Amino acid sequence: MHPLDHTDPLAPLRVHFQLPEGVIYLDGNSLGPLPKAAIVRMREVVEQQWGVGLIRSWNAAGWVELPRSVGVKIAPLIGAEADSVRVCDSTSVNLYKLLSAALALNPTRRGIVSEADTFPTDLYMAQGLLAQLGRAPSDLTLASASAPLETCINADTAVVLLSHVNYRTGECLDMAALTALAHRYGALVIWDLAHSAGALPVALAECQADFAVGCGYKYLNGGPGAPSFIYAAPRHQAQLANPLSGWFGHANPFAFSAQYSPAAGANRLLTGTPPVLSMAALDAALEVFSHTSLAALRQKSLALTALCAELMQPLCERYGFANITPMPQRGSQLCYRHPQAYAICQALIARGVIGDFRAPDILRLGFAPLYLRYADVSTAVAELAALMQAEAWRAPQFNLRAAVT
Amino acid sequence: MHPLDHTDPLAPLRVHFQLPEGVIYLDGNSLGPLPKAAIVRMREVVEQQWGVGLIRSWNAAGWVELPRSVGVKIAPLIGAEADSVRVCDSTSVNLYKLLSAALALNPTRRGIVSEADTFPTDLYMAQGLLAQLGRAPSDLTLASASAPLETCINADTAVVLLSHVNYRTGECLDMAALTALAHRYGALVIWDLAHSAGALPVALAECQADFAVGCGYKYLNGGPGAPSFIYAAPRHQAQLANPLSGWFGHANPFAFSAQYSPAAGANRLLTGTPPVLSMAALDAALEVFSHTSLAALRQKSLALTALCAELMQPLCERYGFANITPMPQRGSQLCYRHPQAYAICQALIARGVIGDFRAPDILRLGFAPLYLRYADVSTAVAELAALMQAEAWRAPQFNLRAAVT
Repeated sequence: MHPLDHTDPLAPLRVHFQLPEGVIYLDGNSLGPLPKAAIVRMREVVEQQWGVGLIRSWNAAGWVELPRSVGVKIAPLIGAEADSVRVCDSTSVNLYKLLSAALALNPTRRGIVSEADTFPTDLYMAQGLLAQLGRAPSDLTLASASAPLETCINADTAVVLLSHVNYRTGECLDMAALTALAHRYGALVIWDLAHSAGALPVALAECQADFAVGCGYKYLNGGPGAPSFIYAAPRHQAQLANPLSGWFGHANPFAFSAQYSPAAGANRLLTGTPPVLSMAALDAALEVFSHTSLAALRQKSLALTALCAELMQPLCERYGFANITPMPQRGSQLCYRHPQAYAICQALIARGVIGDFRAPDILRLGFAPLYLRYADVSTAVAELAALMQAEAWRAPQFNLRAAVT
Repeated sequence: MHPLDHTDPLAPLRVHFQLPEGVIYLDGNSLGPLPKAAIVRMREVVEQQWGVGLIRSWNAAGWVELPRSVGVKIAPLIGAEADSVRVCDSTSVNLYKLLSAALALNPTRRGIVSEADTFPTDLYMAQGLLAQLGRAPSDLTLASASAPLETCINADTAVVLLSHVNYRTGECLDMAALTALAHRYGALVIWDLAHSAGALPVALAECQADFAVGCGYKYLNGGPGAPSFIYAAPRHQAQLANPLSGWFGHANPFAFSAQYSPAAGANRLLTGTPPVLSMAALDAALEVFSHTSLAALRQKSLALTALCAELMQPLCERYGFANITPMPQRGSQLCYRHPQAYAICQALIARGVIGDFRAPDILRLGFAPLYLRYADVSTAVAELAALMQAEAWRAPQFNLRAAVT
């Protein structure tokens, strides 16, 4: 036990998760672990609701309401207005809906501004939309160290697409300031909350954010490929044109009219039939958040990352790790650059410490405050120190590159 | 037992399904029942692959391959070329991808031709796409009894969108003839296989179909909201522009490049991270198809519907049911029009015979040959006769209209 574990108010929440023996899991920012509530729920949904209830469960078990009812549980985690969040589709698909809708809401402008190092699929969706609309690829401007956001946003910017926490560096952007900046230029803002929701406070409404998407399977622990959440500020909903205008977004889906008529409110963000099994796991996973607060999660997350950074300092000096996470603006992860990051990550996993590798040279460590102990941090760094000392990462089996997710 | 059950070669397959006691399930065309293989698989995926394997299961358990590997199992069920099918997203979303891509492949033409009584979300997706592209709603032409398909398709038709089996009437279209008709006019064809895949032979390649989508949760029994399948003929794949160009469709998703570059082949049909739990249930559900052939399924399906139609004849005469399914071109369902169809359907469900209602006045009965017995058909019709005789449908609880899926 680390001394900080004795006074950790979140320590009791660890029992809500099924964590395998002998593993320290520093990859909850990529795939959250299995909540025990999800085990129970999945048996119930599969064996009772589907197996016995059959088609009747669409109403009797509330399947048809899941996009809204799961969204209602996520709304407080992201500071969204009641009933402004829905759960459906993948993050990429939801981002596409919002990008298209935002361009349509700002029709005299052409530009999309994002960041060169945002999560790539966000850029791919923007590129696909521009190509589909016959617009120039140059309508997408990417901010970078040499071209900061402030210099990219201008009077032709229709929409700004930003990651709240960068997947690669762990930097957390100032949502209030950047939303205000975009609004000053008349642009709308879409926030990608994939790496912040569930790990730190997000205040969409307070920041007057326009739109947001996020991921169900990272800090929300909803299971592999869990559906995404999508948010539209209430002030935009009535004008919002979802290009993926499927029957679940219809004002009256079961009238089977031949003409699309968008639902009032956030339901128009929906498209097709939701993947109930995956939705149910996410729904169950969200229960644990009712036992704590975002402030408490943030406090522990900051303490976990501070401890890790402190313990890593000697390894940085001795073995050449470089912490590229801007500590004062950090999210809930730390990213270390090292020329041998791939092999080191594999060797660390072989010792039971699961972090991940991000190309080309980043060892990424995520710190989920719901279930990690301070002792996990000190053990993880000790394992890394031991493997670096032994040069264990040089073993051939750790140097075979394969697909890494 | 009905005499035909004694000689039914598919009778042994019923044990692969978890069917509740006291229920005759004539709604497998809306939500297939629970395959026993899916119970086992879901426990494995949730409790072992997710719970113990954690992030490692993306590779170790083949999660990253599921869109392709499940597609490989569906391909023979729809007569598709090997490796030309992927599983991902909802049917609506997949249809949108193909509609957009088909329009782009036929850029000198503007028209989309579909049917007024096709499944509504198909029309909604076309309407959303046209609105998004700034095209006129009149670019979508709907064939109907008064304006047959042959009169709607012309030299300005870019793409024809057809349901192989109509969800409301049960009519099965002639895929070979209609594909050839569209091709004669230079149009591409998208087939919606939601109500045919898994119940009758589909021959996409033989018919030279261009594109197809279909549903995982009807006759394929993949579970509520199971992901959809998507098909593109190999000859179109290299030119195909998926507007939803997410990272799973990238040539090298894990290089995290900032520029989208489409994968070779059908992988470019993919978008975001697949919902693994829902994908896994569908994967398990497909196992049972290896024990039979599409010809055997079709033969039994035709015999089941023929028996039902025969037994229903006296009820049509006595109680005013009208069979609106064109029997020589029937799929695997029968649809009876009756002014009190809603209440009758509810009363029938209360007696343990689950069919469904389709607005405004249709009682829809689906006949899935994998698990239904001929005795189920005769019992179902006997229950319907009894409730009509007793006028049981007049009870107030059967006349409260609620959302019906």
